[in-house]
Amino acid sequence: MEIKTSSKFIAELIGTFGLVLFGCGAAVVAGVDTMGGLSGLGLLGISTAFGLSVVVFAYAIGGISGCHINPAVTIGVLLAGRMSVKDALVYIVAQCLGALLGAFVLQQIVSGQLVGFTPGEWAFGSNGWGKGYQNEYGTAAAFLTEAVLTFIFLFVILATTSHVGNGTMAGLAIGLTLVLIHLVAIPITGTSVNPARSLGPALFAGGQALAQLWLFVMAPIVGAVLAAVAWRAIAPSTN
Amino acid sequence: MEIKTSSKFIAELIGTFGLVLFGCGAAVVAGVDTMGGLSGLGLLGISTAFGLSVVVFAYAIGGISGCHINPAVTIGVLLAGRMSVKDALVYIVAQCLGALLGAFVLQQIVSGQLVGFTPGEWAFGSNGWGKGYQNEYGTAAAFLTEAVLTFIFLFVILATTSHVGNGTMAGLAIGLTLVLIHLVAIPITGTSVNPARSLGPALFAGGQALAQLWLFVMAPIVGAVLAAVAWRAIAPSTN
Amino acid sequence: MEIKTSSKFIAELIGTFGLVLFGCGAAVVAGVDTMGGLSGLGLLGISTAFGLSVVVFAYAIGGISGCHINPAVTIGVLLAGRMSVKDALVYIVAQCLGALLGAFVLQQIVSGQLVGFTPGEWAFGSNGWGKGYQNEYGTAAAFLTEAVLTFIFLFVILATTSHVGNGTMAGLAIGLTLVLIHLVAIPITGTSVNPARSLGPALFAGGQALAQLWLFVMAPIVGAVLAAVAWRAIAPSTN
Amino acid sequence: MEIKTSSKFIAELIGTFGLVLFGCGAAVVAGVDTMGGLSGLGLLGISTAFGLSVVVFAYAIGGISGCHINPAVTIGVLLAGRMSVKDALVYIVAQCLGALLGAFVLQQIVSGQLVGFTPGEWAFGSNGWGKGYQNEYGTAAAFLTEAVLTFIFLFVILATTSHVGNGTMAGLAIGLTLVLIHLVAIPITGTSVNPARSLGPALFAGGQALAQLWLFVMAPIVGAVLAAVAWRAIAPSTN
Repeated sequence: MEIKTSSKFIAELIGTFGLVLFGCGAAVVAGVDTMGGLSGLGLLGISTAFGLSVVVFAYAIGGISGCHINPAVTIGVLLAGRMSVKDALVYIVAQCLGALLGAFVLQQIVSGQLVGFTPGEWAFGSNGWGKGYQNEYGTAAAFLTEAVLTFIFLFVILATTSHVGNGTMAGLAIGLTLVLIHLVAIPITGTSVNPARSLGPALFAGGQALAQLWLFVMAPIVGAVLAAVAWRAIAPSTN
Repeated sequence: MEIKTSSKFIAELIGTFGLVLFGCGAAVVAGVDTMGGLSGLGLLGISTAFGLSVVVFAYAIGGISGCHINPAVTIGVLLAGRMSVKDALVYIVAQCLGALLGAFVLQQIVSGQLVGFTPGEWAFGSNGWGKGYQNEYGTAAAFLTEAVLTFIFLFVILATTSHVGNGTMAGLAIGLTLVLIHLVAIPITGTSVNPARSLGPALFAGGQALAQLWLFVMAPIVGAVLAAVAWRAIAPSTN
Repeated sequence: MEIKTSSKFIAELIGTFGLVLFGCGAAVVAGVDTMGGLSGLGLLGISTAFGLSVVVFAYAIGGISGCHINPAVTIGVLLAGRMSVKDALVYIVAQCLGALLGAFVLQQIVSGQLVGFTPGEWAFGSNGWGKGYQNEYGTAAAFLTEAVLTFIFLFVILATTSHVGNGTMAGLAIGLTLVLIHLVAIPITGTSVNPARSLGPALFAGGQALAQLWLFVMAPIVGAVLAAVAWRAIAPSTN
Repeated sequence: MEIKTSSKFIAELIGTFGLVLFGCGAAVVAGVDTMGGLSGLGLLGISTAFGLSVVVFAYAIGGISGCHINPAVTIGVLLAGRMSVKDALVYIVAQCLGALLGAFVLQQIVSGQLVGFTPGEWAFGSNGWGKGYQNEYGTAAAFLTEAVLTFIFLFVILATTSHVGNGTMAGLAIGLTLVLIHLVAIPITGTSVNPARSLGPALFAGGQALAQLWLFVMAPIVGAVLAAVAWRAIAPSTN
């Protein structure tokens, strides 16, 4: 069954749109610790929002585009020799557009709060590090965290979708890996491992979020390259 | 294997009954922040209650009625050309009756608390927005939120249950999407994306809950229509 | 493949042992709201402990005994015509012994806390209701809650394990239903829907827990009988 | 399809590395109760981090090494007659190296916090018991807890991966069992049931963590031996 490139483009766009809307949306709208008589989502709820987004889109659009919804994933899959350069470029454009659309809709929603809304330095769930960001980690720790966690993420993706993986459970395992990554890294960088997810909010937040965007492009790509190398070293041949 | 219409009717009724009893029940009975020495469910627990209800009924009654338990889902499935108008009407009646029964049983239970119980303006887990409701968002933000999130919900449903989806995991993916929707939208509207789920509590709460019911009928239908259009645009043909 | 009755007996005993040790253990050891600098499990964590116990034993011993680990489940399955009276009695004895063993090991562990331990009126995760128990609900509300929630539990069990269910996902759906039941009912009765789970802690706690045990035998049986009737009404014939 | 021993070695090393980085990392970086306006992970989040790590690596490297990532699991599988002594030794060396690497990377990350970092007596998520550790339980309670919970863990592993188990769901059931084990035991021992997971942090923390390491080697092995005996008693023959 042939899937049209335009279908893949729309699927990646909607998936990345949903990832940003669910993940950053949960963080911004419901993440805070108290909401009247209810407790907010906290780190566990926000981690769940990002990770389960990958789970549900994996089963929704996996059969159409493979559900990358992350340029680092597309680069890892490309380096593993499983897709063409041309398709990779189409995917990355769709992912960036989807993330921008997600951040835009989120901005529209939060600006509808009756008390009014003034976006801060790292608004809309932006990634960052250093003085004033979450638990205040240095640049080296932020880079190491993003690179190592993207390495594990891509390693799990390449392994579970290989011929020794389980096709039924791969989407669940991959999304739960993203939950795990957020369980560790939110206090450090807010957790990206995904250049598109960082791009969307940063363009609307500006300031530090935009100035620090480079790390969330570079570190995930380093991790993805290392994972492709590691997986090629241990992948069983099919012969 | 032929399934009788009466079986589908009872299945949809029991499923929607369970959704309201579990979802609104968790919010009303156990959602609050403190309960003696224990912390209550908070936003994460309530979101889990609504979403997992769809997961479990998907596997229980999916083989009988398809487990819509939501008029917006029935309308989306109808527009995607996968069911008849007559069946759709039967489903929607069963869903509304089930939601009413769920809200009735919940009312019976909470009125059994020894300290006594006085229902408020938006009691029994009713949906709403504006001054005095959760984090107080305006009408436009409430409508946008409900329409966009129902769009994603129906998009995931139509995709996962199509011939490019995975039949074993579809129920899980659909229910987890409802978890995600609640992770974002409880502070805004209490999260509906389901006219029947809003109808049940509103009829017992009256007041604002009933006056604002229109939005939770209109916005989910708008989202469902858009999802049917989007899915038709990218669905691979089977040829 | 023939499974020996002694194997089924041991499987049900170990499964119910694990359910009580995990579920009541989480409530007693880790449920409280504060633990040094960490937050305790609260209602969401305790609900997860009970429900996931059923998930994991469903996949561990489902192929040996069917993993009832609950006399109400055994009675429902018996009434649905899927097992013999003799096997049902063997199962129920094993379940009660397993629950007692779980409560005994839990007692041994908690009495090893260095500050010392004095069991209260409803110790070891006992079920109960009324003045002094959780959020203080009356007897009628407690009975209604236990009966209705056991009805849904058995309905999901009979449906997911029928020929219209999905054998791979049934165990997950059944265990998640028990999560949902706990999300609603812990503030009311501590959540039983399982006479054996109530028996174990009650024998070690004595007092009110033992005096109120009757409700957690009667109400779940009423719910199980109703579910067997409802499922027979809508179950598609295999012809 | 032949899997090379070096591939199994690397797979076990990466898997145990990930388990320690995700599990201990979540506890150390994000576990604390408050983080600015957000609530930390608490016991539920930390339990999730350890357990889901097993889920995701089960599906990633299960087809290569079986995903033990725990010397107690390797010993249990060995005693059940399912692997050679030589392979078992290779696995255990890889697991210990992976755990050390995980603890090393975690140390590098946390020492990058701008406010500075001084490791305490049981730093980096070390296991322990007694005065000054979590809720302060005695040695007997700590040993009983680790032995009984490892017994259940290995029983579930041997059962779900046997010919009466479900190959698709085994990895999920095994990882969720580790979630359950943590839901009960963090206040008692921090939860090990895994000598390698205890070794890694202890070598970097020194002090009490290193002095108490023996229990987290002995008790899990006792539990694993008992589980192998119990499973052999009830396992249905394939004839």
